[in-house]
Formats: sequence, structure tokens, C-alpha cells
Amino acid sequence: MKTDLYRLTASEVVALTTSGQLTVEDYVKSLISRIEERDSAVKAWAFFDPELVLKSARELDAIPFEKRGPLHGVCVGVKDVIYTKDMPTQHNSPIYKDSLVPVDAACVKILRSAGALIFGKTQTTEFATCQKGTAAQNPHDSKRTPGGSSSGSGAAVGDLQCTISLGTQTGGSTIRPGSFNGIFALKPTWNAINREGLKIYSIMCDTLGLYTRSVEDLEMLASVFALEDDVTPEPTPLPLKGAKFGFVKTAVWPKATQGTQDAWALGKKLLEAEGAIVEEVELPAEFGVDGMGKWYPAVLAGEGRSAFLSEYAGSKDLLDPLIVSHVENSTGVTRAQQLEAYDEIAKLRPIIDSIASKYTALVTPSTTDEAPLLEEPLRFTGDASFNLMWTILHTPIINIPGFKGPNGCPLGLSLVTPRYHDQELLRVAKSVGKVWGEGGGWVSAL
Amino acid sequence: MKTDLYRLTASEVVALTTSGQLTVEDYVKSLISRIEERDSAVKAWAFFDPELVLKSARELDAIPFEKRGPLHGVCVGVKDVIYTKDMPTQHNSPIYKDSLVPVDAACVKILRSAGALIFGKTQTTEFATCQKGTAAQNPHDSKRTPGGSSSGSGAAVGDLQCTISLGTQTGGSTIRPGSFNGIFALKPTWNAINREGLKIYSIMCDTLGLYTRSVEDLEMLASVFALEDDVTPEPTPLPLKGAKFGFVKTAVWPKATQGTQDAWALGKKLLEAEGAIVEEVELPAEFGVDGMGKWYPAVLAGEGRSAFLSEYAGSKDLLDPLIVSHVENSTGVTRAQQLEAYDEIAKLRPIIDSIASKYTALVTPSTTDEAPLLEEPLRFTGDASFNLMWTILHTPIINIPGFKGPNGCPLGLSLVTPRYHDQELLRVAKSVGKVWGEGGGWVSAL
Repeated sequence: MKTDLYRLTASEVVALTTSGQLTVEDYVKSLISRIEERDSAVKAWAFFDPELVLKSARELDAIPFEKRGPLHGVCVGVKDVIYTKDMPTQHNSPIYKDSLVPVDAACVKILRSAGALIFGKTQTTEFATCQKGTAAQNPHDSKRTPGGSSSGSGAAVGDLQCTISLGTQTGGSTIRPGSFNGIFALKPTWNAINREGLKIYSIMCDTLGLYTRSVEDLEMLASVFALEDDVTPEPTPLPLKGAKFGFVKTAVWPKATQGTQDAWALGKKLLEAEGAIVEEVELPAEFGVDGMGKWYPAVLAGEGRSAFLSEYAGSKDLLDPLIVSHVENSTGVTRAQQLEAYDEIAKLRPIIDSIASKYTALVTPSTTDEAPLLEEPLRFTGDASFNLMWTILHTPIINIPGFKGPNGCPLGLSLVTPRYHDQELLRVAKSVGKVWGEGGGWVSAL
Repeated sequence: MKTDLYRLTASEVVALTTSGQLTVEDYVKSLISRIEERDSAVKAWAFFDPELVLKSARELDAIPFEKRGPLHGVCVGVKDVIYTKDMPTQHNSPIYKDSLVPVDAACVKILRSAGALIFGKTQTTEFATCQKGTAAQNPHDSKRTPGGSSSGSGAAVGDLQCTISLGTQTGGSTIRPGSFNGIFALKPTWNAINREGLKIYSIMCDTLGLYTRSVEDLEMLASVFALEDDVTPEPTPLPLKGAKFGFVKTAVWPKATQGTQDAWALGKKLLEAEGAIVEEVELPAEFGVDGMGKWYPAVLAGEGRSAFLSEYAGSKDLLDPLIVSHVENSTGVTRAQQLEAYDEIAKLRPIIDSIASKYTALVTPSTTDEAPLLEEPLRFTGDASFNLMWTILHTPIINIPGFKGPNGCPLGLSLVTPRYHDQELLRVAKSVGKVWGEGGGWVSAL
């Protein structure tokens, strides 16, 4: 048995477990060793039970080859705001300490049906809301944040502690940890994956996110989750020669610091070197501070009023002040403002689709820079400014890792295609991911 | 003890239980007797355990007076697609037979925090989707449907078997049973009540619905669920003299038969007799068959693909063919059509708000007529045509009972106000409900 089985991607795991070259138990043992070695530095897990995982592994190994699913033996870290029938779901909230609801979220059920092994629950900020960080630390530099709110999901995949993981995104909670941990992070089209069994924060924003270390793995997941475009993309790699990329700085570009500025320039250069056409795209004013910049928070404020009322009614004292302020609407956002925000943002969705459809993909920053240093007591998870707009516009978006920040930590850039062009996005990501991964300057030391 | 305690409304129950004039146990015993007497005719319940309910009643009776909540002792029937921690949630699906997930949906948690007693689970069509009826029968004529998908919730409140109940609406599943059972049915503004713990069918449509036998009861619930307008309406009754009602037949008016046609004319006459101004309102063409008429089903078809994928992946053979066809997209609705539908309907929301804001309220049919006869094997729950548009437009809507169909069964008309004008809608409903209730011609024989 190779000692570094924990390095396998999902595609590699499945190739080995479905052909009988690897037992799930051996694979899982390697991951367990990895966690034992690294957990004190990364602290990705809110719940992890090696015995439970080994039991699941043996059950999978007992399945006859002809009945093994497309994700047989893939070990999935599940953000701790997503129900798992055999593990607690604690939302990083004292209200739900040790709470085990024996039901699988729809996404977990689909993964299990495909042969995946639910591996553990990963650290999340409280109810995936607050910017107050978790115990988790960045695997590439434990003094830095792994991002949030999907802190543990990003860190665990980045640190090779599980094969893939699930996050969620309301603001930038999937893309940001993707960038900070040097991994692929896909936020699919809004509602393309059922959100039943996930804690609801904003119905208009919340989207399940997927973390992997290869685009092939995302393709497997897209197939299992039936992410289908109207037109199935060619199975051949996308040629970058002649491909056209629209680089969208967005209105929050002034927040980009050295790492992202450098990645921006290098990302362009690398694509141009492949023969791609690169253009800067200026979005209409409605996407800026006086439009989207006020509408996004109005939606969140409005939806937060009902999202946490049940916890507020029963256990107000145990809620983070941010959540209490949501329920009490302390920012005073009116329903009229919330509705204006809904309606105006709805107008922007076909506009961004139309802009994106003129390009092979849009490119936009994932984060303002590499992961910031953890500072007590807040353990701030980083700035989500570059992510908010894309979340509420419902487009699919993917973080492509490969770039190096000023302190040697990873960061990525994001690609965007129109809504329900998720498969197309993955095809682009595969070609771009190769180029940026090889030329972006960051190589994982793990 | 009065022998007909089961007739009490929620407001009456609370007045008695919080002042010590009535124990919850006595009240519950009366409801249990009612169910024993009437269940064979109505069959409203998917799960009902008198011992469990009596235990809950005694627990509520043990609460000191000063700690009793605003719904102390109100007995709530819960549609069986909504999680309750102490009762099975079976979705009328063989996949979930006897399945008990020990967690409360957010709405149930809020009701319990307010002192309500979760009374039993009410019959629903499979996953609140199919038009194939349930075992439940109309309390006013057991040969007729109580409507669907919230069949049991409508029937149980209509038959005085519980105080209030919870339904859901994706098409017309709250309003239709309201009309057929002769009770008040409120579908609040979309997402004004958190839907966590409800089976998801269409994220863009699904809304929790509330059934009561008085508008006062809905006011109590609106308070508990924090349904707050930007401007709190006057606490005094709305004077109908000078009030202005816009009667909206909509493009599906040709489906209205005798009962609804008569109610329409009488409803107008009764309002005019009070000095109200009544106008017919013609909606723009986009609300008609070539717009809304194709967009609503496109949204449902698109969202159905992901909504039931988890059940499909694990238990396809146990799903109703309609649900299978959703997942397999057998109607061939494209993602482009789904997105066009999202975007075009989004444009209509501020338009309908603006039209509605010119009136005290809009009036529109609740159903095509009184409840149709049950016919085996489909047990069709009735036509939802008049409801679909309002659901996806996200406006609050309420069924006002009072009218009599050609066979003596009840039917109602609906009132509509702009989004997030739920309290205003209730104020209008109170005045209109009185007039239509007294003059509409239907009196419950129960």
C-alpha cells in the first residue's frame, strides 16, 4: 500500500476502488493517518470519528464490483450546517451542541447513493453567517485563516485530509476558502443542486458549494448532481487559442491588494501566451456601489429577519449578535428596500448572462489577496467583497488555484459563465486550470 | 365543561387557557372526541396519537400562568411534509413510511415557542406535488375532495378537529383547500416565514400556508411569525365605505363555473352595499396565457429536476410518475426557457404590486367552483388555475369563505395586497370576511 494514498483525487480513488486495486478501508486509513498527523495544525473538523468512518469503508468494500457507484469510496467532508444522518450537525452554535438529526440533506443522500463515504463534519462559522472565524487554520500557513464560512471544508481538502468536501455560499463562503486553500471551488448555478437539509440564511443567495483538487473531480460531481446545460459541451479539451476572456474587475477592485493585482496581470499574460484573447470588461453602473452595492445587503437584511426567527424565539441569548441584529432588523432596512433590491437584481441576471455569453468565460478576482493572518479574538475569515455579486446573480463560478501571494500563500482567480452553463464552465476551467496551475507560481508544499 | 370546546377559535382558546378558565387537557379531550366521532367521514390525519397529545396538553397545563405564550394551548395540525420532532413525517410517500426525523421545522419551532400544541400530521398529496388525492374527504360532503395538496390541514380545521393548521402552497395547495372547506387560508408573502424543514418542491413558489376559522386567529399567527409591514396598519376595523376593490378575473376566468360566477357577482354586490367602490381590473397581457401561462410551468419543470433528485437516485421505483417525469425533464423544458420564465416573472412582481397598491385589495377567484366529487382512483383535488400566478408573484393572498356552491358546499374568493403587506391584507380580510360571511349564503352545518 502506498503511504500517500491520501493524495489521491476522487477520480483516482474511484478508478482504483472500482477496479479492485484499492480497498476503501486502506484509503480511509491513509486519510485517518493524515488527520492524526496534521489536525493540530489545521483543525478542520467539527466532528470526526475514525471508527465510524472505518465501518462505512468496510460496508463499501462489501459491495460487489458491479454495484459500485460512480463515487465509490470518495471521502466527503461535509460543512457542519448540512444534515448527515450519522453525525451531529452543530452549526457552530451552542444551541445545537451535540445535536444529531438522523437525516441526510438531499445533497448528502445523492452522494451516498453514488457510493461516496460521508467522512466527517467540517468547521463552519456560526450558521455559516458571521465573519467571526472558526478553530480551523490554513493548511499552508497555520497562522492564517482558511477563509469562511466553509473554513473546515476548504482546509480539509487543501490539506489532503479528505477527497472532496461540501460548503455553502451566501456571500463568498465557497469561493474564498477555495482561493485561500489553493483548491478548486465550484458554486454552481443557484438551486441547480437541491438545498434541502442545509441551514437557510438567504433563500435568494444560499448555494451548495463543491471543493476538489482537480477539475475532473468536479466533472464527476456535476454528473452525479445532474448539472446539465442545455447544450452538452464537447468532451474534448477547450483550445485556449482563440478563446476570449472578459476580465471583470468590478466596482470593488480598489480592495484588491498586491497578491490579487499580480495574479490578475499574470493570469492575463498566461492566457495570452496560449493565444487567447483577453479584454477588460466594464459592467453597467447598476452593478456598482449605488446599485448592487446597496441591493445585496438589503436582501440579506430582509431575509435574515425570517431566517433565524426560530432560534431567536427559543434561544436568543445563545445567538451571535449579528444574527440577533438580523432578526431585529437593527439596520432598519425596509421591506420596500428589500423588494426594490429583489426586483432590480432580477433585472441584472439576464444582463450578466448576456455579457458572459460574449466570452468563453468571464474572469474576476476570488479574493482581495492571499489569506490574512488570524487575529484573536475575531479570527476574521477574510473579505467577501469580490464574491457577493456573483452569488446573488446566480451564475456558476469557480475558483481556479495556482497563484502565489506576497507571503507565498495560495490565491486564485474565478471564472464565470451564464446561469445553467455549469458544464461549460468546467470545460473552460480544465484548460485554464492547467495553464494557471503550471504558470501561476504557487506550488503546494504539502 | 362545555361539550363543544372543539368549536373554539385560537383566540378563544388562548383567552381561556391563559386566564385559567380552561385547561389544555380539557380542550384537547374535546378535540379527541370530535376526531373519534368524525374521522371515518373526514380522514384528515396521516398521524394522530391521542396519548401523545394528552401528554403535551398536561405539560402545557403545568406551565405557570405568567410564562404562558401567545398561543398557549392552540392545537396545530401540521401538513405531513413538515418536520415535527415527535411525529413521523411521511410525505404520503412509501419512501418515507413511518419515517420520524426528530427535528422541528422552523415554523413548528416558532409555534411551540409560543405555546402551541403540535396536534398531529395531516394528509398531503405525495410530497405536496401530485394532483392524485389523499384519503381525506370534505367535511361538508364526504363524497367531495377537501382539495389538495394540503388536504388534511384544510379538512381538519374545516371540521373543527384542531384549532389551526399549517399547509404549503406551490400552486394552489393552501388557497384551494381553504375555499373547499369553508375556512380562512393565508399564503403570506413568499419567504416571510422561514421554510426550513419543509419539503422543497419549487424554491421560487413554495410558501407556508396558514388555516384558521377566524381572521383574529391569523392576526395572532402573523404576530408570532413576525409578519411585519413597513407601515403597521391602524388597529381599528377597516371601513368598507369608500374602500376600493379591484376585481381581477385573470386570463383563466373561462374556467370559473356556476359557483364562482355567482360568488363573484354576490361578492361585488355585498361590498357595494357597504359603500365600497368595485372595479374590474384587466391585467397586462404578460399575465395571460402567452406569458405567465407558459412561464409558471417552466419554472416548476426546471426546479423539479433538482428537487426530487435525491429520492430519484435512491428509490425511483417508489416515486409517483409525475415526480419521475420532473427529474427526467420529460416535458423537455430547457434551462433557457426556465431562465426566461424567472426573469420575465420577476418583471411582473413590481407591476402587480403597483396595480394592487391602487386598491384597498384585489379580489380574485380562489377556485373554479365548490369542491368537485371524489372520483376513484385519482381522487382529483381540484383545479389550481386561479392560484398559480399569485404564488409565483409572491404576493400575500387570503381565501375568504362565505359563498355557497350549487350543491350547497362552501367556496371562497381571495384578496390580494402587494408583497409584504400581509398585515394590511388581514385588516381588509377582517372587514370583508364579516360581510361575505354574513351575506354570502353559506352556513356551515357542522
